[in-house]
Formats: sequence, C-alpha cells, structure tokens
Amino acid sequence: MTTTSELNELTKAATAAATQAAAATDGERAAWLVAVADALDANTDELVALADTETHLGPVRLKGEVGRTTGQLRLFADVITEGSYLEAIIDHAVPSATPPKPDLRRILRPLGPVGVFSASNFPFAFSVAGGDTASALAVGCSVIVKAHSGHLKLSERTAEIVTEALDKAGAPRGIFALISGRSAGTELVQHPAIKAVGFTGSIPGGRALFDLAVSRPDPIPFYGELGSLNPVVVTAAAAAARSTELAEGLVASFTMGAGQFCTKPGLVFIPAGTGFPDQVVTAAAGKGGAPMLTTRIAEAYPDGLRQLAEQPGVDVLSGEIAQEAASDGAAPVVFSTSASAVLANPDSILEECFGPTTVLIEYTDQDELAAVLAKVPGSLTGTIHAEADEEVTELVTQLSGLAGRVLFNGWPTGVAVNWAQQHGGPWPATTSLFTSVGATAVRRFLRPVAYQDAPEAVLHPALREANPLGIPRRVDGTLTTS
Amino acid sequence: MTTTSELNELTKAATAAATQAAAATDGERAAWLVAVADALDANTDELVALADTETHLGPVRLKGEVGRTTGQLRLFADVITEGSYLEAIIDHAVPSATPPKPDLRRILRPLGPVGVFSASNFPFAFSVAGGDTASALAVGCSVIVKAHSGHLKLSERTAEIVTEALDKAGAPRGIFALISGRSAGTELVQHPAIKAVGFTGSIPGGRALFDLAVSRPDPIPFYGELGSLNPVVVTAAAAAARSTELAEGLVASFTMGAGQFCTKPGLVFIPAGTGFPDQVVTAAAGKGGAPMLTTRIAEAYPDGLRQLAEQPGVDVLSGEIAQEAASDGAAPVVFSTSASAVLANPDSILEECFGPTTVLIEYTDQDELAAVLAKVPGSLTGTIHAEADEEVTELVTQLSGLAGRVLFNGWPTGVAVNWAQQHGGPWPATTSLFTSVGATAVRRFLRPVAYQDAPEAVLHPALREANPLGIPRRVDGTLTTS
Repeated sequence: MTTTSELNELTKAATAAATQAAAATDGERAAWLVAVADALDANTDELVALADTETHLGPVRLKGEVGRTTGQLRLFADVITEGSYLEAIIDHAVPSATPPKPDLRRILRPLGPVGVFSASNFPFAFSVAGGDTASALAVGCSVIVKAHSGHLKLSERTAEIVTEALDKAGAPRGIFALISGRSAGTELVQHPAIKAVGFTGSIPGGRALFDLAVSRPDPIPFYGELGSLNPVVVTAAAAAARSTELAEGLVASFTMGAGQFCTKPGLVFIPAGTGFPDQVVTAAAGKGGAPMLTTRIAEAYPDGLRQLAEQPGVDVLSGEIAQEAASDGAAPVVFSTSASAVLANPDSILEECFGPTTVLIEYTDQDELAAVLAKVPGSLTGTIHAEADEEVTELVTQLSGLAGRVLFNGWPTGVAVNWAQQHGGPWPATTSLFTSVGATAVRRFLRPVAYQDAPEAVLHPALREANPLGIPRRVDGTLTTS
Repeated sequence: MTTTSELNELTKAATAAATQAAAATDGERAAWLVAVADALDANTDELVALADTETHLGPVRLKGEVGRTTGQLRLFADVITEGSYLEAIIDHAVPSATPPKPDLRRILRPLGPVGVFSASNFPFAFSVAGGDTASALAVGCSVIVKAHSGHLKLSERTAEIVTEALDKAGAPRGIFALISGRSAGTELVQHPAIKAVGFTGSIPGGRALFDLAVSRPDPIPFYGELGSLNPVVVTAAAAAARSTELAEGLVASFTMGAGQFCTKPGLVFIPAGTGFPDQVVTAAAGKGGAPMLTTRIAEAYPDGLRQLAEQPGVDVLSGEIAQEAASDGAAPVVFSTSASAVLANPDSILEECFGPTTVLIEYTDQDELAAVLAKVPGSLTGTIHAEADEEVTELVTQLSGLAGRVLFNGWPTGVAVNWAQQHGGPWPATTSLFTSVGATAVRRFLRPVAYQDAPEAVLHPALREANPLGIPRRVDGTLTTS
C-alpha cells in the first residue's frame, strides 16, 4: 500500500519528469514507447504465466492481450511521429484587417502528470502499460498508475519492466510510477499535481472517483469507462434468414472471457414469436462454466442474476442460477423478457450484470423497439443484424445517439486498435467526449496553447515557418499535409 | 422569467429540432448561420442603440462587436463547409490480421440540445448569438440561451431576429430559444434533455453551475470561462528600452471597456527599481472614469479595490478608491507591490478585480519571478515584453503552462476570431481543454461515433468511399485533403 508521503514523492518526481517529457521531441518519445513494447514482448512468457495465476484468463487470451498492448504502444509511437495529433494551426498576421490581426499559432501541449486506474478485466491492455498509460506517455505526460488489487503481482512486475525500459531508452526519471491501495487511489485523484485521470471499472467506483475529480478546488478531467449494456438489435428478416448463425455468434460473444468484457452484448432485441430463443438455448447448451477474475466478481455474479430473475416478466431461458459462486466457474445464463416488461420496469432490467449472461427482449413492432431502445443507457456499442435490402436509417440514427460504435452484422466483443476506433459513449459508458482506445485517445491528455507574434526560436518545430518535420497543419485556413 | 413548464416545452422542441439539425447537411447549416449574420448586420443600428442603453459600452465599441459577432457566424459557416471538423477517419478492413480487423469509420456527431449562458460584458459576441450559440448551431445542435439580466431587452430583440432568420432560412422550428431568470438557468443545466452547457461569467457563478452539471445523474460537459488575471511580464531589457511605450500600452489595455474584459492584464511583473511605475502614473493621469456594465458590477468595483489595498505591502500607486460606485463611472486605479509581498499572501493579492485596475509587481531576479508566477492561477493569456535578443525559453514554458495564449510584445485585450485562436486556459480560466473562440470551439459540441462494417447508404457522406464533398479525412492512417 502506497503511503501519503510516498505518493507526494512520486508526484514531485512526476512533475519534474513531465516538464522534461514535454520538452522531448515526438521522435524521442516514440522511441520510449517502442522500448517499452519491445521489453514487454521479450518478457511475454513470464508475464502471461503470472497473469494467469491472478486472473484465470488463460494463456491464449493473455498472450493475445500482451500483443495487443505492445501493438498499442507502437500505434501511439506512429501517431506522434505522424504529427497530426498536434493540431498545429497557423494564422499569419493581417495588418490591414480592422482591428489588425496578429500572427497566431496554435498547438496542443501535454497536461502534466496523469493518474491511471487499472482495470480488472484487461490485466495488460487496460492496466499498467495499457492504453491510458501509452497515450499519456506518448504526448509528453508523466503517469502514475494505481494497480488493480486483482492482479497486484503482475502489476508490480510489469511496472518493473516498463520502468527499466524507459530508463534505458533515456526517458526522464519519475515519468512512470506504480501505486497500490484504495486510499492512495483517492489521494491520487485529489492530488494538486495530477492534471487528469484515466479509469476503467465499475459505475459505482468510477462515479465516486469522478465526483472527487470534479469537486477539487481545481476540477480536472476524469476519463472514465464505467459500464455498458451494448444493445444488439436483430431484425425480423435477419432472424428469419440466419437465426442459427446469429444464436451461435451471440453465445460465443456474451460468454467470451466469461462475459467480463465491457463490450459484452447484454441486451438482444429480437422480433417476437420467432424460433430464435430456442436456437440460443441450443447454442448455449454446450457451454460450461469458466472461472471469473476475482472472488468478489464471482460472488457478485449470482447476485446479479438473481436480481434480474426476480423482475416481473423476466424468465430464465437457459442455464441455472447458482446459490453461490461455483468453484469451477460461472456458467452461462440467458434471460428472456418482452419489450413491454422492460418498458414497465426499465431501471431494474436495464442493469449491467458482469459475467456470461445476456437478456433476450422480444419486440412486437418498430415503434415498440424504438420506445424500449430510448430507455437504454449510453453504451460503448450498438449492433444491428439486418439483411442487405432492409431500411435501417432510423435505427442507425437511434443507435448512433446512444452508443459510440455502431456495428453491422457482427459482435461487439473485440475492439480493433487503430486510427478510427471509438471506445466510448454517452454516460455511463464513458464520462467524456473521447475514446480510450485508438489513435485519437491522445487528445484526452492535451490542451491547446496559442502563441501570438512569437519569435520563431521559442515555437514548437511544427509551428515554425519551415516546418522541418513535415507535420500536417492548417495554414491560413488551408490544411496542408507537409 | 421562464417557468418550468415553459422550459419543458422549449426543451421538447429543441430535442426534436436537434434530430433534424443533425440530419441536415453542413451546407444547409452554413446557410442558416449566414442568414443569421445577415439579419444581425441589417439591424445593427437598432441593436447598438438598444445595447448602449443597457450596457453603457458606447456605440463605437458595440458596433464593432456586432461585426465581430456576424464575422464569427460566417467563420463557423466556413469551418463546417470545409469539413475537417468532422475528423473523418476510415480504416479499411484487414481480413488477414490476427484477429481480423473490420472496416471502421469514425466521425464526429452533434451532442443534441445545448444550454448557453450569456455574458454581461459582451452583449453580442458572448451572448444570444455569440460564439457558443454559433458553434453549437454550426455542428447541428439546438440551443437554448439564458439571457443575461444586464441586457434583457437586447437579448429579447436579438433572439427575435435570430429566430426569424433561422425560420426563413429553413432551419427546424425549436432549434433556438431564449429563456430568462436565475431559476430557469439552473433548471436548464439540470434538464435531462440538455447535453452540454456553455457559460461565460464569474468564478462563483460558473462554479455553482459547473457543480450542478457534474452532479447530474448523467454528468454533462460544462464549458465555462470563469476568470483570468492575465499576467504580463516585462523584462529588464524591455523596461530599459521602451518603458514609456509599455506604460501607455498597459494603461490603454487595462482601462479598455472600463477594464471589463476577460483578457484585461490584471498583473504586471516588472523588474524592481526602474522608472516604469512612474511612467504608468503619467500614462494613467489623463484617464477619467467610465460607466460600468451594471449597478452591481459598479458597486463591486470599489469593494474589490479596497480589499486589495488592505493587503500588506500593497500600495495605491495611481488613482483614488471611491467610497461607493461613482455616478460618472469607475476611475482607473493602479496598485504596486513586490513579489515577496505576493509570495507571503498569494490568495488575497492574486484575485481578479473586475474593472479598470491592475497590479504592478516588482521582482528582483528570475528565480523570484518564476516563484511568484508559479502562484498565479490558470489564465486565458500570458504576455511577455522582451527584447529581440533575450533568452526567454523558460519564461515561455512557464507561461504556456498557466495560460492558453502566450503573447509577445502586445496586449491581451483583443481576441482575433480565426482558426488558430485559443481562448481558454487552466482552471479557473476555463473548465475544459477547449477554446470558446475560434474555429476549434465546435469540438465542444461533438462526440465521436464509429461505424463498423456499415453499408454505404447509412454512412455520412464524408465516410463513403467516393467522398463526394471532398472532405479532408484520414484513410488507412494517411491524411488526405480531398
């Protein structure tokens, strides 16, 4: 457990390091990220073995996650090297204007020391060296990570590797640190030196930290990814054309990783009176239990199931609700209900249950579907299964309003790490207008600064006339790519 | 005063209008903005006369502000027509990747109905048809403006003109509305239909509304511009070379508009032992009083002056502190103090006083200057007066950290409306990582949505393969400008 005085020392070092990191070139910081990626790749076997003992996620999934994590570090290295992220804008002086316009040059600059809270369910990709850390380091912030208690040893070993790699690559001392303990976490969010926080976790935990961040004397941005039901809509035509395939796809998606993904499809809207529920029962029949991340999560799962099963109009379609957390793991449970039952009782049915479970909701027509979708809280994803010739514009508009990623004929688990990704949506999916995955995640840790009539020598290279690095920028209103 | 049921009707209409506005093309919305600008221009004389009776700002300044406001509307029309603001990104599918990568296309979409709070000190440019309204309408949000009580008649007349112009231009009914009254304002911030708030005003007022916005069951972004001291640093070389010119420039800047600009230079750091304070006394000698915006502001001014004058080590260098608000207006007052006095008592001396006053702070060396600057709260601007051959890199770094715009050898009053402007800084200057002036202000009212494996027909034109409008976008990692 990190003490208050230890945290003070770490933030002091992080503040000094942030100044140095901000002054480093994008090329230098890109090299730091690649060094961290290389070091993690080189230690994959050790890290995967350690992670498996703490998370039960299995070596195949964990090895894939290490690759995803190091790929992410390398993507951010590419992003800062390319340079568009700086949003460089130059407006030359217009002395003849009334009033005369000065020379004005705008660029994004790093915020300073950033706090990051690790997630339970992604011990690599959303943890110590995960997306929040990588995107903050990329743009010149220093990072203090709060380890997740569910994988503390892995966190410590990962932090050692990261620290050593950064050090060898020439990054400033203090640019990265790991802390642990709940009270150190709350102190981190409230610490005057910390300028922003990234968080992945539950709605209650995230809300509590969000409230601390915004009630500081100087409120800071809190980038939380909290909870998501990830509604899926199956049209009548799609159900008629391929219900077996859809049922198998659904079961694979909601049971993946024991249903502990933030993008797990938790609500499936299906036309009433089809054979689709039977197909889901068949597809789910062969699925056994899987161990969950932590004892606390495993214990919460049957509680959540029971709460859903108690709601009027909600039936258990497949699976059994265990009396307590099973030692051999959580078995899939599928619920079925109707749109009218949800409309009568939305708050209790439209609640996320972490684990391998989903709710099939039968709708009778498009109006009822629209009405019940209007009750669904903000989500990371919204999915449409439709046939090629169907008119789905209104449905797309509605899902675009409640989710940050709208999928067609696929499943929301699986989040590509690339330039176009959007992993974030309206509250409570996330607490900001940004993504926590993909290239544009860096914008969270930057603020604009404009320089008026500044001498060339004090300007960032991307703002100098010659643009020696060929950074894309807007000059007098026109976007230029070199 | 707008009642609760009136507000409910307006938000209902605003919600419906936002859906229509989001579906309109950028070209259509650009035409709406230009129609509003044309209508305001056509009614300038009437509006200026009305504004002068309510604000005492004088016809010259007010006429200029109308031009700034309509220029701003036209700039946002250009911004959305150009299309980069959409941040369109396409990553084509990579079926051979492990795991296979889907086709993913990201774009920014409007938030929905937005609340805007008018400012007292800019009855046009930061009020009913000001920057917040213009940038929100530009991107497809609807807007409900809370009128400022200091210019209620002007607000109502402006709203009539805006509403009629939008209506004639074919914008959806309900896209714009005006409300009044303090309780309607707080209800607006808490209303479930409202998705973001823009605000320009005082620190206490802004903080109270910020707290409401972030303590909603679904917190929303609150874009507040609250307060700013706008530090100015004069180097020894600059003071030696041109103290008369600097003193005259300073007096013109801090007394402009009776010192009621958010960019008023409120702190001036000068080397100890120069003749600069005498030059300021000479320059200020000829300056008479000027009427302030409202009785409340006029009454607060002498209170603020007295509070400063009572601080140990703070002297009145020029001007007199009136016992009460003078009927012929507020006269300039210049304070002088030392960096050591500020360091001993930063909170009480480093406090904004709205009106024609500024504080000269003498520093003995660079270390003392850096130490006292470290105590200055976040500001909209930071200014450096230095000679061409001076080394100012560290000073620029420090000012970049505390302000959103760093000026060289100029004065911060006067904010150009263009692509590169940054009008926003660390708390309490603003409450977000955005600007409220200039092209990039639109990002405040947008959220990203990604479409995965979507049929062309449902995509925004900027995300279709052919890109018929030639919108700049990033395709498979490469930025393209057509």
